[in-house]
Amino acid sequence: MNFCSNCGTRVVLKVPKGDHLPRHVCPNCGAIHYVNPKIVVGSVPEYQGRILLCRRGIEPRRGFWTIPGGFMENDETMEAGAAREAVEEALIQVEIGSLLLLANVTSARQVHVFFRSRMLTPAFGTTPESLEVKLIDTSEIPWNELAFPSTEYALRRYVEDRAAGVERYHVAEMQRRF
Amino acid sequence: MNFCSNCGTRVVLKVPKGDHLPRHVCPNCGAIHYVNPKIVVGSVPEYQGRILLCRRGIEPRRGFWTIPGGFMENDETMEAGAAREAVEEALIQVEIGSLLLLANVTSARQVHVFFRSRMLTPAFGTTPESLEVKLIDTSEIPWNELAFPSTEYALRRYVEDRAAGVERYHVAEMQRRF
Repeated sequence: MNFCSNCGTRVVLKVPKGDHLPRHVCPNCGAIHYVNPKIVVGSVPEYQGRILLCRRGIEPRRGFWTIPGGFMENDETMEAGAAREAVEEALIQVEIGSLLLLANVTSARQVHVFFRSRMLTPAFGTTPESLEVKLIDTSEIPWNELAFPSTEYALRRYVEDRAAGVERYHVAEMQRRF
Repeated sequence: MNFCSNCGTRVVLKVPKGDHLPRHVCPNCGAIHYVNPKIVVGSVPEYQGRILLCRRGIEPRRGFWTIPGGFMENDETMEAGAAREAVEEALIQVEIGSLLLLANVTSARQVHVFFRSRMLTPAFGTTPESLEVKLIDTSEIPWNELAFPSTEYALRRYVEDRAAGVERYHVAEMQRRF
């Protein structure tokens, strides 16, 4: 950040009065520009025991497999965002269910919030965001071709929990891998 | 947002190619400035059956009671942020426990993530952010003087769950109240 988004003046980095961290502060209008972690919302969609995965059509990690998910927007709930991403990435209609994973992805300055979800119909398809979409048995998960650490973590917990007949939530910190 | 924080040029509002929402885009350097919900982290601190509340020393809702919490910073986990806020608002050392509430606060463009926490010692005190701090029985919660809808929602679920001998998590949407 170089310039004040409010008045266009070059910002300075300093600790505002009463604060404890350096922020980008505007010497002209006084605006303090905070930068905070972003929320990624998504879900593991299920239809009659099979789950849906998408092969990413965009960077980062183009060509690798993931669950439908993306940045939460303003003016939507986490559940609405996760359902929106399911449409945008796989053309599926889902009902969001229980919380699966709350992941600290500190290296990317993100928090990932993943739910379980239920596909309302078996219909799905590719979109500009996905090269390929498939509905698979959990035994067919391509563990070595998953896009992100949180994708793998969420799917491993999903599989374990389902085998145990429970729907637990998990809080975890993802390690940088790529 | 009026100016590009990267190069200082006046931004325009438009839907970038492949996107579905209007964003502030720089016509000079091409930067797209996304604005997303912010995360507030906090906890309900407990010490030998009593819980700790703070009376806010800063706006918004100065003078009203709340649990220690605040904006999550970059480069920290949710749990670390919640523990940091407990120090900043009440000078307490806590161990973060189970997830209590994941709240959509859409009107404020925030997500609140509240945990249960355990005070490691009974020591507490006021800070520039708190006018008053107290360790109270749950029967003494000042229900009519709480700062935010999420404060009340978290405390009600906390009390109910404790009475039931469980530590559930809750996902909810907060209604604008003030």
